[in-house]
Amino acid sequence: MPTTVTAYAAPAADQPLVRTTIERRDVGPHDVRIEIRYAGICHSDIHTARGDWGPVAYPLVVGHEIAGVVVEVGAEVTRHAVGDRVGVGCMVNSCRECAQCQAGNEQYCLNGMTGTYAAVDRDGSTTQGGYSQQVVVVEDFVVRIPDALELDVAAPLLCAGITTYSPLRHWGAGPGTKVAVVGMGGLGHMAVKLAHAMGAEVTVLSQSLKKQEDGLRLGADHYHATSDPDTFTALRGSFDLIINTVSAVVDLDAYLSLLAVDGTLVNVGAPAEPLPVQVFSLIPARRSFAGSSIGSIAETQEMLDFCAEHGLGADVEVIGADQVNEAWERVLASDVRYRFVIDTSTLA
Amino acid sequence: MPTTVTAYAAPAADQPLVRTTIERRDVGPHDVRIEIRYAGICHSDIHTARGDWGPVAYPLVVGHEIAGVVVEVGAEVTRHAVGDRVGVGCMVNSCRECAQCQAGNEQYCLNGMTGTYAAVDRDGSTTQGGYSQQVVVVEDFVVRIPDALELDVAAPLLCAGITTYSPLRHWGAGPGTKVAVVGMGGLGHMAVKLAHAMGAEVTVLSQSLKKQEDGLRLGADHYHATSDPDTFTALRGSFDLIINTVSAVVDLDAYLSLLAVDGTLVNVGAPAEPLPVQVFSLIPARRSFAGSSIGSIAETQEMLDFCAEHGLGADVEVIGADQVNEAWERVLASDVRYRFVIDTSTLA
Repeated sequence: MPTTVTAYAAPAADQPLVRTTIERRDVGPHDVRIEIRYAGICHSDIHTARGDWGPVAYPLVVGHEIAGVVVEVGAEVTRHAVGDRVGVGCMVNSCRECAQCQAGNEQYCLNGMTGTYAAVDRDGSTTQGGYSQQVVVVEDFVVRIPDALELDVAAPLLCAGITTYSPLRHWGAGPGTKVAVVGMGGLGHMAVKLAHAMGAEVTVLSQSLKKQEDGLRLGADHYHATSDPDTFTALRGSFDLIINTVSAVVDLDAYLSLLAVDGTLVNVGAPAEPLPVQVFSLIPARRSFAGSSIGSIAETQEMLDFCAEHGLGADVEVIGADQVNEAWERVLASDVRYRFVIDTSTLA
Repeated sequence: MPTTVTAYAAPAADQPLVRTTIERRDVGPHDVRIEIRYAGICHSDIHTARGDWGPVAYPLVVGHEIAGVVVEVGAEVTRHAVGDRVGVGCMVNSCRECAQCQAGNEQYCLNGMTGTYAAVDRDGSTTQGGYSQQVVVVEDFVVRIPDALELDVAAPLLCAGITTYSPLRHWGAGPGTKVAVVGMGGLGHMAVKLAHAMGAEVTVLSQSLKKQEDGLRLGADHYHATSDPDTFTALRGSFDLIINTVSAVVDLDAYLSLLAVDGTLVNVGAPAEPLPVQVFSLIPARRSFAGSSIGSIAETQEMLDFCAEHGLGADVEVIGADQVNEAWERVLASDVRYRFVIDTSTLA
């Protein structure tokens, strides 16, 4: 029998979130039921709920940065037990059969992974996300949160953390490499912490120097304002890897010119408009422009373990559920240092 | 004392090439003098001579696909001897001191490699290319042409060959990989031969099926017309590597959609206009859009040895020097299968 839980839902694309109830499915043999303690607020939540990325079904509960505690497990569950501290990120299932799933890259499932919200689940229902009291997820898509990490600062790692950790690892950030992070928001501030912990020399490229003190505190070695044209002259050909966390349209050629030979600029932010690229920005230095999407389940676990080992969590501002609409406006105004996290006990 | 030799030069951006004489420098201690036998005609020759890529000094002799025989060597030359069959490609020098030169990537010289024509040489003069009887080049930028390769079919390897060989090697074309080649021109036809010889499964993506028979003969396993929208549906997510040899603006997102997870599309053709790229074409499959420029001197030698071993040369149409202007018009009309080569003995 489904369980009724309280949640904050978008009733329509153009309306504020409202307190409501939703149903969570009964725990199947491979499911775990998680009592959600904290849910991070990601810019994607807003884009999706407002229909910016295409039509969605309403009412919709978003949230894919989920940290909580296991309260019930299915008969055949082996990976988790009641009482475990766990997390759920941007996906709750995948086909399990394609070459990518078999290779452990569920995020690139060739049949399409199942998003944590606004996706059609395997049973035909629409998935509902983390701005709620509970969620039921198949055990393979639930990760352990190490004891060294508090649940509130761990929640944003499930999206902002893995989305930056995965490309940093894939493109070899580490000792001897120079990494630039474009944008000092939720993703950017995690990219700085992670790249620094991996041993890379880290430079923040932010519109202004407003957050410079924070950037250096989080582990950046250098901090430059992109509003200053001298930045692009001084840093020409400097970086092995640039992680662009900005979802707005930027002058990509200017950023590509900052890459060293064989360097890669990876977009994890996704503007809806196309970005014009001059091929001459790539050819004379064998540069690449790439994209990366979250990370696999195994890599998410690896990232959480890495964060625990290095004492890294997100910088968060914890809010009550009734502050969610206000928080969304502040996210849109870039007025958060650096992630809002909903204390879901306030839903009760 | 400089030597006066006959050449075909562009007197201005908007005038046909004319027979003239130019001076070649005296052979210095590290130089070799090459009697040019064949010079390939590359699309870049036309772009450069006509000022499409920026202003150049006139009169200008172009040509960077040079095959000939050594007729004089400097006192300290050790790599070449009189009588050797040799080639010169797109560069005749580099700084020798930067990290890229030290690493053997002269083509990505951080101080700028010296182009075979229209570049400022180390002595301050303007370099003049291969549409001439002789050229004097420092020995380190001269490669051996193996006996198994005829000089006429070898000439285009110095640009069209290495420009496609290098990215095929860099991005791992070989047994078990699926490579697509966009465009069946001078570069494209070499990409097909080389990728096939490397053991990859090769698909040609050409505007029409006009050259299908040629493509299959050269080693392609599949051939598709890009004018047929079904091509993009049928081949979605198929390729590990796409080599785009087309210099015109194409719908890049359509081609990116043909890449498998972790696939790379490499542009070796360079349209002057920017190409719009949707970030969503990259993110959901960790795809890359890259550029690549010719290859190093060592890699050029490796490519020539590879071609000799596999019996690969360019498909050429040999012409006399007085046919050059007509040949340029035919290149612009894509009316050549697949490379014009000037028999420079006709300059005498």
